[in-house]
Parts: sequence; structure tokens; C-alpha cells
Amino acid sequence: MTDRIHNFSAGPAVLPEPVLRKAQEATWNVAGSGIGIMEHSHRGKVFDRIIDEAVANCRTLAGIPDDYSVLFLQGGASLQFSMIPMNLLPADRTADYLLTGVWAQKAVKEAKILGGKVHIAASSEATNFDRIPATDEIAYSPSPAYVHLTTNNTIYGTQWRSEPAVPAGVPIVADTSSDMYSRPIDVRKYGVIYAGAQKNLGPSGVVLVIIRNDLVEAGPKTLPTLLQYRTFAADKSLYNTPPTLGIYLMGEVFKWIAAQGGLAAMAEHNAAKAKLLYDFIDSSEFFRGTVQQDSRSLMNVTFRGPTEELENMFIAEATKRGLDGLKGHRSAGGMRASIYNACPRAAVEALVKFMKEFEQAHRAAAARS
Amino acid sequence: MTDRIHNFSAGPAVLPEPVLRKAQEATWNVAGSGIGIMEHSHRGKVFDRIIDEAVANCRTLAGIPDDYSVLFLQGGASLQFSMIPMNLLPADRTADYLLTGVWAQKAVKEAKILGGKVHIAASSEATNFDRIPATDEIAYSPSPAYVHLTTNNTIYGTQWRSEPAVPAGVPIVADTSSDMYSRPIDVRKYGVIYAGAQKNLGPSGVVLVIIRNDLVEAGPKTLPTLLQYRTFAADKSLYNTPPTLGIYLMGEVFKWIAAQGGLAAMAEHNAAKAKLLYDFIDSSEFFRGTVQQDSRSLMNVTFRGPTEELENMFIAEATKRGLDGLKGHRSAGGMRASIYNACPRAAVEALVKFMKEFEQAHRAAAARS
Repeated sequence: MTDRIHNFSAGPAVLPEPVLRKAQEATWNVAGSGIGIMEHSHRGKVFDRIIDEAVANCRTLAGIPDDYSVLFLQGGASLQFSMIPMNLLPADRTADYLLTGVWAQKAVKEAKILGGKVHIAASSEATNFDRIPATDEIAYSPSPAYVHLTTNNTIYGTQWRSEPAVPAGVPIVADTSSDMYSRPIDVRKYGVIYAGAQKNLGPSGVVLVIIRNDLVEAGPKTLPTLLQYRTFAADKSLYNTPPTLGIYLMGEVFKWIAAQGGLAAMAEHNAAKAKLLYDFIDSSEFFRGTVQQDSRSLMNVTFRGPTEELENMFIAEATKRGLDGLKGHRSAGGMRASIYNACPRAAVEALVKFMKEFEQAHRAAAARS
Repeated sequence: MTDRIHNFSAGPAVLPEPVLRKAQEATWNVAGSGIGIMEHSHRGKVFDRIIDEAVANCRTLAGIPDDYSVLFLQGGASLQFSMIPMNLLPADRTADYLLTGVWAQKAVKEAKILGGKVHIAASSEATNFDRIPATDEIAYSPSPAYVHLTTNNTIYGTQWRSEPAVPAGVPIVADTSSDMYSRPIDVRKYGVIYAGAQKNLGPSGVVLVIIRNDLVEAGPKTLPTLLQYRTFAADKSLYNTPPTLGIYLMGEVFKWIAAQGGLAAMAEHNAAKAKLLYDFIDSSEFFRGTVQQDSRSLMNVTFRGPTEELENMFIAEATKRGLDGLKGHRSAGGMRASIYNACPRAAVEALVKFMKEFEQAHRAAAARS
């Protein structure tokens, strides 16, 4: 195990090591079939069992109600930015978007490309997305087709604590790519939940979509076949060849989460990791957090140093110490530690230890600057 | 190695064992980075080198000219059925399709869903797609935007020997999902070549698109961002998170093909395997091929037995012997041996040996039937 380092990448991100071991085995020979997971027909019995299990385990973790479908799609969350309005935004309706960062902006952009009417119900753009809008800042349109939000904002390091109130009967559509299954989620509150796998759920190239069945059927049948949700719901995500390895690995991650104690245990584990880091940042006179405290993400911890020079030095030295992926996104600057489900507590402890050492070594330089 | 069986799956299909060994290693720690291939940021140096190498090796294999882009997309060839007409078929033009099977039919269906004008320039549907149309059967429309063909038809077991003649200046758009890089290909003859990876090139979930640069720019800028080719060409297939493992593995398959001697050597290897099987079928009084000889596929060898009962017995006994995936597609019946690039000669030899034994054991029963 000593040949692996601490990986704080924002995504694709670290996967649980037991799942990687399963992947290695399955690559050569899955389920004793004599054939690797990537070489099995998606119409055969072996893969059929794998996808059925993945769906069942996904359902169990969040207690997904029977009137929701669990689908596996391709194209990333970015293709969902288009599929959502294509399927759920009729020409005579308006969709409300809560603008909390770049991904929400991209979702709005794609809705507008399609000619969709979009209302920005709240935005924290004026302060560079340093917070989640407060309840009294949100102003919905009279009767939105849906309310779209991004539950966690990787770039800025903010996260919705819980779902905002929405007008009665209006479905919430949530991009949960960066905090899916990091905590319990009450699926019943949502119309659509979608998540690119590559942060908390598996490898890139597969998107989990949990969608209420009436919304599956809401899309026009005149859309390209692969851009209708019903295509995937009708055929168990097997209309065409799905990303079989991605589905297998997502299934293994679901099992791993269950083995950790499920979503409540995951939430506890994640909160403890984040607390370790935020507590140190708050106690430090050298490092500082970048977002408002009540909006802080438990997944992406963003922080700054005293100067850009010291930040660059910090990132370079951390990398040498085997603490990888700490450079902040270019639009936010500074540092970012992404500590998703699979990030072990030991990685965060190693990071805090290094931050302390770095602070001690460079406090004098910072005071002079 | 004894724990793996002979896999004749039509796709996802067998991968080269050296590539699977690389995949196992890279899953844990790729390129000595201390991080697995699925856990690396697609914006980092490690993945950057991987994708650059994959593109370079793809280019070298077929001598792809500089004015073509090599792109990695998601959604399978099935999403290309929509992206092609979205980008390349203006409302006032007609596209010509050569109808040689179910996949070509699906491509036509998606073009029509978009309101595209489609002309069927030739079809072998009347005889259940048992052949590739002859040159004199093809009648193009006056000035098609493009001519679409499926180079190999997995279900029926037919394959174009070479590109059909097309009107001067009209780009050929080819779905090469099931014979890509199984033989040399003169890219210059094509406008767009697209191939789902899961037969000859890698795992499912990644599509190789080779497209002439003027066609990259032909698509309307009003399309959803992820459905424009320029999005992928402008950003080295990295506009959003790509299927990183799939791209890595495709790159490894390209290297493996090069190590086998390149596309000419691949073609020789594949022709020899197919000859072994077809020669036996032609010599047999028990088995028979299902398609016209000059249309036979070197990738998917389709054949029938004397009765359906004996066919089912053959498939069941073959499976017990570790010869998997031989059941023909439901719309063609009988048997199908898919013998793509990575299928070793030994697998075909084992199959022919079993066919001989089965014929000897059951010839009497067949004579009575």
C-alpha cells in the first residue's frame, strides 16, 4: 500500500482501495465467469446480475421509493444540463435555477441554448459564489416547471445544508455530482437527482440518474432516442451498450458504502474529516477559509495562504510529501482539499500535520509580507 | 491464464490479455504516480500525457492526416446516429444511407427523428441483410450532404470489402464500430469515422471519432454544447470529464496493435482466423454460412446448424467447453463467432475442433431430421 499517495483531486477522485482491488480482479475474470468485466456482453447473465445488484444496492442506501427509476447514463452531468430542459421544460413554462457556481451557470447556459425560459431565483455570483443563498434571498417565478440546484460546488467549496423550500408540487432537480451519497438524502423531495460518478460514486463516464417516473414520461417522444429518459427507464439502461465497468464499479462503491454503515455513517465520517480541517484553518493565523462558515462544503475545503507566493510553495511542497491535488481551481485560486467519501481520515490528518509544519516554518515570512 | 475461457462475444468483446494486465496495474497506480488511472484529474499532467499518447498512437496506426481531428466522446455509436445529422445535415439537404442492417436502420431512424431528409441509396433488407449491396445496386440522390454506411454488420455477419464509390466531394460517414483498426483504413476517403470502442478498441463507454476539420466546423453553434463536434475538437476532448479509463485503455490497445505489426499485420491475423472458420464451414455438410460469400465479415462469422434443436445443443455444449458467446443475435438466429482483433487464433482453433467433433457426433441425427 506504500506505493499510493494521498489524493485530494476534485475529480476524478480517489476511490476506496477495496473497490480498486475488486476492479483489478474483475478486469481479468469477473464472478468466476472466466471473462473480464469489460469483455462481457451487456445482454448476458453475468452483467445482468451486476446491473440488477447495482440498482438494488443504490435503492437500499437511500430507500429510493418504487415510483422512482434508477438509471445509468453517459455524457457526464454536462449532458444532463441539456437533457433536463429537453425533457422537463415545455416552451410555455419557466424553469428556476439557483446560481451557486460555474456548474449551475453551465446548466443555465444549456437550458438557454435550447430556447428555454430561465429565471434565476437566487445567486451568489456578486460575491464570487462565497455562500449558499439564504432562504429570504430566493424569489421563485410564479409557477416554475422545476427548481434546479447544485447541491455542492466543488470550485468554491460551498454546499447546501439541506434542500431549499420550493413552491408546492414543483420538482427539485439536483446536480449532486460532488456530494452524492456523502450523507442521507430524502429522494422523495426531488424530481430528478443526477450525479457524474467520478467524485463519490465511481469512475468517470457514467452518470447516476434517479428520476420520478412521471417525469420519465414527461419528455417529448420527438427527441433523439438517447436524449429521452424513457429510453433508459424502459430498457433497464440497456437500450445501447452502457459503460459496463463504470456500472460495475458504482455497484461496488454502493456495497462499500453499505459496509461502512450506510449513508448516516458516511455523513459522520465526512463531517469528522471536514471538522479536522476547518478547525485547524479557523485556529490558524496563516491559513483562512474562503467561504462563509454556514455554507462550507464537507467535500471540498477551500482555503488561502497569506500570499500567492506562499500558496504556490505550499502546493509544491505538499506534492513532494505525497499530498496531491491541492491546487485550487483557477477561478477561485489558493488551495482546495477534496475529501469525498473515499478519502480516508488518515489523508486529512496528514494534510493538517503538514499545514501546521508549513505554518510554523513560514509564519515569520508571512508576518513580513 | 487457465482461469480464462474463449470469449466470442459480439461486444463488449475480448480484450488483449497484455492490455488487461496493464489495466490491473494502472487501476492501482498508473505511471508510477501513486494514484490509479481512474482517480487522476483529467486536467493533470499524468492524464494529459495519456490522452496525448492515445491520440498520437491512433494517428500513427492509420496515418491520419493533419486536417482530421481525433476525438473521444461518450454515448456510444448510438449517440453518433443523432450527432451526425445534427451537425452535418442542413434542413435543405438530403443524406444518403446504405442500409445493411439494424445499426444502419437505427442511424436512419435518428436522422428522421431530427426531421432530416434521408435517401436510402441501397438496401439488402429484402433478403434479411444477407449481403453488402453491389455497386450497381447503389443509387445516390443528386447531391447528398453525406453518404452513411456501416462498415461491418455484427448481427448478420457482413462487411464492406472496401468503400463504395460516392459522388465527387461527398464525404463518407462510416460507423466502423465493429471493424475499426481490424485492417488498414484510408482515412482520407472519409469525412467522419466513428466507432464505439467495445469491439476492437477498448471497453464500452468511449467512442472514437475521426473527423475532417471542415466538418467539425459545419455544425450549427446553436446545438447543445456537448452535441457539437467543435466542443471536443477545441478542447482536446476535455470540455468536461471524459471517460478517462476508456481513453487510457484505447491508448493501450493502439500500442498493442502497433506491437503486433500495425494494421496490415492485424488484417492478416484476422483474415487467417476467419479463413480457418469459413473453410471449415464450407467443407461441412452439417454447418452452413448465412451470408453471401463475397459479403462475409472477417469479424462476425454467422452460421447455422441443421436444426434449431441441434443449434441449441451446440451452443449449450460449447459453453460447457469454455467457448462462450456463440449464440446468434435473435434477429438472425443460429450461431455467431465474433473474432475481433483481440480474439486469439487459439480460440478459433478450439472452436473449429469442437465444431468437427460436434458434427461427427450428431451427423446421423441431422441426416434423420
